[in-house]
Amino acid sequence: MSKKVFKDLVSVEEAKSIVESFAVSRKVEEIKLENALGRIVARDYEAGIDVPPFDRSTMDGYAVIAEDTFEAEEDSSVKLKIVGRIGAGDFLEVELKRGEAIEISTGAPIPKGANAVVMEEYTAESDGFVRIYKSVAPGENIMFAGSDIMAGELVIREGTVLSPREIGVLSALGIAEVEVYSKPKVAVFSTGNELVKPGGKLGKGKIYDVNAYTLMNSIEEDGGEAVFLGIARDNADEIRKMIEQALDYDIILCSGGTSAGAGDMIYRILDEWEPGVLVHGIAVRPGKPTIIASLGNKPAFGLPGNPTSALMIYSIFVSPLIRRLSGLGEEKSTEIEAKLAVKVFSSSGKTEFLPVNLVSGEEGFSAYPVSGHYSGAITSLAESDGFIHIPAEKVIAEVGERFTVKLFSEEIKPADLMVIGSHCIGLDVIFRLLRKRIPDLRFKIINVGSSGGISAIKRGEADIAGIHLLDESAEYNVPYLKRYGVKNAVLVKGYLREQGIIVAKGNPLGIRSVEDIIEKKTRIVNRNRGSGTRILFDMYLKEIAEKRGEKFKELTGKIKGYTIEAKSHSSVAVAVLMGKADAGIGIRTVAEQYGLDFIPLRGEEYDFLIPKAKFSTWKIQQFMEVLTSDELSNSLPPGLKIYKRTGEIIKL
Amino acid sequence: MSKKVFKDLVSVEEAKSIVESFAVSRKVEEIKLENALGRIVARDYEAGIDVPPFDRSTMDGYAVIAEDTFEAEEDSSVKLKIVGRIGAGDFLEVELKRGEAIEISTGAPIPKGANAVVMEEYTAESDGFVRIYKSVAPGENIMFAGSDIMAGELVIREGTVLSPREIGVLSALGIAEVEVYSKPKVAVFSTGNELVKPGGKLGKGKIYDVNAYTLMNSIEEDGGEAVFLGIARDNADEIRKMIEQALDYDIILCSGGTSAGAGDMIYRILDEWEPGVLVHGIAVRPGKPTIIASLGNKPAFGLPGNPTSALMIYSIFVSPLIRRLSGLGEEKSTEIEAKLAVKVFSSSGKTEFLPVNLVSGEEGFSAYPVSGHYSGAITSLAESDGFIHIPAEKVIAEVGERFTVKLFSEEIKPADLMVIGSHCIGLDVIFRLLRKRIPDLRFKIINVGSSGGISAIKRGEADIAGIHLLDESAEYNVPYLKRYGVKNAVLVKGYLREQGIIVAKGNPLGIRSVEDIIEKKTRIVNRNRGSGTRILFDMYLKEIAEKRGEKFKELTGKIKGYTIEAKSHSSVAVAVLMGKADAGIGIRTVAEQYGLDFIPLRGEEYDFLIPKAKFSTWKIQQFMEVLTSDELSNSLPPGLKIYKRTGEIIKL
Repeated sequence: MSKKVFKDLVSVEEAKSIVESFAVSRKVEEIKLENALGRIVARDYEAGIDVPPFDRSTMDGYAVIAEDTFEAEEDSSVKLKIVGRIGAGDFLEVELKRGEAIEISTGAPIPKGANAVVMEEYTAESDGFVRIYKSVAPGENIMFAGSDIMAGELVIREGTVLSPREIGVLSALGIAEVEVYSKPKVAVFSTGNELVKPGGKLGKGKIYDVNAYTLMNSIEEDGGEAVFLGIARDNADEIRKMIEQALDYDIILCSGGTSAGAGDMIYRILDEWEPGVLVHGIAVRPGKPTIIASLGNKPAFGLPGNPTSALMIYSIFVSPLIRRLSGLGEEKSTEIEAKLAVKVFSSSGKTEFLPVNLVSGEEGFSAYPVSGHYSGAITSLAESDGFIHIPAEKVIAEVGERFTVKLFSEEIKPADLMVIGSHCIGLDVIFRLLRKRIPDLRFKIINVGSSGGISAIKRGEADIAGIHLLDESAEYNVPYLKRYGVKNAVLVKGYLREQGIIVAKGNPLGIRSVEDIIEKKTRIVNRNRGSGTRILFDMYLKEIAEKRGEKFKELTGKIKGYTIEAKSHSSVAVAVLMGKADAGIGIRTVAEQYGLDFIPLRGEEYDFLIPKAKFSTWKIQQFMEVLTSDELSNSLPPGLKIYKRTGEIIKL
Repeated sequence: MSKKVFKDLVSVEEAKSIVESFAVSRKVEEIKLENALGRIVARDYEAGIDVPPFDRSTMDGYAVIAEDTFEAEEDSSVKLKIVGRIGAGDFLEVELKRGEAIEISTGAPIPKGANAVVMEEYTAESDGFVRIYKSVAPGENIMFAGSDIMAGELVIREGTVLSPREIGVLSALGIAEVEVYSKPKVAVFSTGNELVKPGGKLGKGKIYDVNAYTLMNSIEEDGGEAVFLGIARDNADEIRKMIEQALDYDIILCSGGTSAGAGDMIYRILDEWEPGVLVHGIAVRPGKPTIIASLGNKPAFGLPGNPTSALMIYSIFVSPLIRRLSGLGEEKSTEIEAKLAVKVFSSSGKTEFLPVNLVSGEEGFSAYPVSGHYSGAITSLAESDGFIHIPAEKVIAEVGERFTVKLFSEEIKPADLMVIGSHCIGLDVIFRLLRKRIPDLRFKIINVGSSGGISAIKRGEADIAGIHLLDESAEYNVPYLKRYGVKNAVLVKGYLREQGIIVAKGNPLGIRSVEDIIEKKTRIVNRNRGSGTRILFDMYLKEIAEKRGEKFKELTGKIKGYTIEAKSHSSVAVAVLMGKADAGIGIRTVAEQYGLDFIPLRGEEYDFLIPKAKFSTWKIQQFMEVLTSDELSNSLPPGLKIYKRTGEIIKL
């Protein structure tokens, strides 16, 4: 466990240019046309045959010599002798002479001698003769050989991404196998004694390997082929063997074990090859301990173990290389301008890539930095729409500052309904019913508690905010909204939630009230600050503190678990169920769902704040209809209750 | 071969609603996470475990009891006894007591008793003790169990399209297999005696099957799984057997054999099942003879044999059904407003879907209808960017009329350089060199001849137009441009092309001049109207007609093949090579390429018309550099020649 000092950090730009200078070249393979969708053609294709290969009839009817029909009219037909019949796929050696006709199907080859086709509609057949009621010009209803594609024409250029349409052209030419750029093969492995493959059993101190899956799927997205070699323990021999195995592939990608400390081995092992490690440490956040190496001209990357860092570093440094090799080329990722929604402190001297959640408001998009990504929270990436790039020299980014957001997905998928506020299971039920009415409805639920919901409405970013804020006057929501000066919205009364203390089955500690939680030194799990439930709990605690003549902070300091913040009712219930806590404040619904006991405190009014400007839109009206429907009333779980005020609209 | 009368045509809207009413339901399957990219999650996923599952260190350093470090400062350290070391993946039973520390790695579980981690940077170890130079607060450098995801949290909603980020969340939860919507299995077969599978040998009267490949790849694009059953001959037993086999799948899709005529059998066979055929004929162009049937509640479609029609009908009627089943939902295809570039006559009473090529000009996009799609030209689809929808009641669509173009590709890929005009092999060479300088250059070459190129420049749609128009004054290009009133562009002199008559090796007919072509009743292949070569040929012919006192039309009427229009020089050469024609006008380059003989007529000035407004752009300047480079001079094939005027800029 010796201390390892990093070499000098290189800048993001230097690291990128090192990756660009890798002398790797595209490979070419021949694949079957049925598997060619989305692949990139590796050479120009010229037509080897005419399409169609022969003069074809474009109609069902009679092949004729046009001159024979010149006299034909609706009321004076011309009579021709039928000397044969020819269907699609047939071939007739007969040569048509004046006065003769051959019955012909769409797609059949025009017989020798014939120079036009009369459509069936304008003919009548009897006794081996056909009457023609309309004249045709030479060439009529014939598609000439090569008129679609002439042999020798350049039909598909190198670099074309194959869609069903180009695949159609190739198949028309009889090409069953097409030369495309090979998918670069990328060997992927993870290192770390703590890692277990998903699906396996977690031992003590172990976590599931995330990077293998996120990286493999990203490689696939970039047109590469990922091969997972497994998880290497923090053991030099094991890692060395893994790398030797990885040398069979085009690119080597490992994650974990790159920080200076106990598990750092990758660096030294990668440097055993020539020319070895090129970059050890990049002035970037997250992802500083990244390694870039060249093992006998094979590019190798050592990514950080932290899943968020690993994926960001992948997308900035590795993805362009794989796209170059796969032929997909530079990613044309969508970029969007957005205003920063909160102040951000960046680290000086390092380029920062900050994942953000995009929310569209009245003045364009706001970017909410996603929390927890420094510590490696995987949810931080899943919740984010893209990331912003804060240059190395910038230390503070202010609220309202404009940034370009690089989106993670190729398409922009703005939600039709943006729901920002407090979480409730009833909300999930409403949206399940709403989705029955609007099957393609795209909605995003950001759980930031009631106060966060009000702010989002004020900024014009939310379409609906679920709130349940209890005022000291014992009235829900309205006093708060007045205090916050919310004027651009209406409050729609929602439903009642039975609120209380969730305890283990049988209530082993005999808890009857909030006081009991303190008296009995109960281990609790709290809710996140800003949530209605937290406010309710704190209100009870303030009352108790006052009664006792204690300071609020003093009182809460004594409560075990007061600082542990669950983000939802379910999480509170699960914590109690698993014995991590003895009690928590929550709603009856969830307590019942998990088979736990429940001590009711009071009914809570869970209401919806909706911007005035959006209230009359079709989607919000559908939401209103669902809210006041019998269907919802029947679907709500126990503990949630439609009451006489449900659907009442309060102007603010 | 009896006449078959169609049932009443149904409207596009009726047909769509019949497809919508198919009572088919999504199936669910469990797949491995490594194969889950882009799949749609079939249920809500709640976390079964906390992530991380235990309190973890986020740093390398020492696990301590925070209270022990409160006195630590840079110049006055606190000394703690090291009672153990713990790496990531390890687990230690020891419980830390006051005055003790445990060396800990990033990711390792916090030992019992410890409540903070001091970073290694602020420590010094010796003789079994560690000196701490900085105080830490309780909880510092610890990521608490469940702080990323708490057990019980809803993490992935039903309907989520899996990207690497959501896959990361699932793997963090140890989920190795995920429930997704199954890809609907679609049985595909083609019918027609004339069809041969690509890769096979074409017999007389046969063509390659196109629909199987375009449809299979389209099904894949829509999230389905296509299974190709093969090609059925126009034989009731064979088709019936194919359908019986197809009933094992979710949807049945066949093409060909649907028109009323010789090969029509599909309709009657599909009607042998209950409820059988629901739609036979839709008021749409192309694709009227489409069949929609239900075979014991299994949706079946009979698409036209014409590849363009088949693919259009697929995308309008079949694709939505497959996307509904696959979970991909309604296609959010990009739509663009465009002005029609030419007048279009539509058929009354039928909805028309017209494929168009989009070109961006000064006033937005122009839509050029792609020719040849009625006759089933496969190139017409490959060349088009999307299609416009002309309502059934509309008969004429005027130039400049605005239409919404539904794009074929999800992304808009406007070309960086739009090259509209006459085709030349030299142009291909220039763009090959240009692409060396700008690897990601996207260019589109639309071959519409010199006159078409001038119109495109006038409308601001082309960035470069290759032109070679010979005036009666014997001057190239400039007189024409003046006559056309082109003012918004400059003319850049290009290179010389040796122009002449291409004849078979050894010149078996002894052709020495254009007169010989007429005298010797030579079978020719002509070039398309508007092309410079066609104008040159016609000029020679006009001279000859005048000399002879004949009318021009009379003269050309005598030339065999005068109406057969090849779209490129290569096609002319191939026609001569294959003996389809004895002679054609073209350039030496191509004659030599195909080993043919060449009778020179005159040197032709192939120049470039470039809009003034775009002339100084970087990409055009790169083009200019290539044009005047030695590299081009050395790369041009025989017959094309850089000369002293190359690169000269003429203001108009």
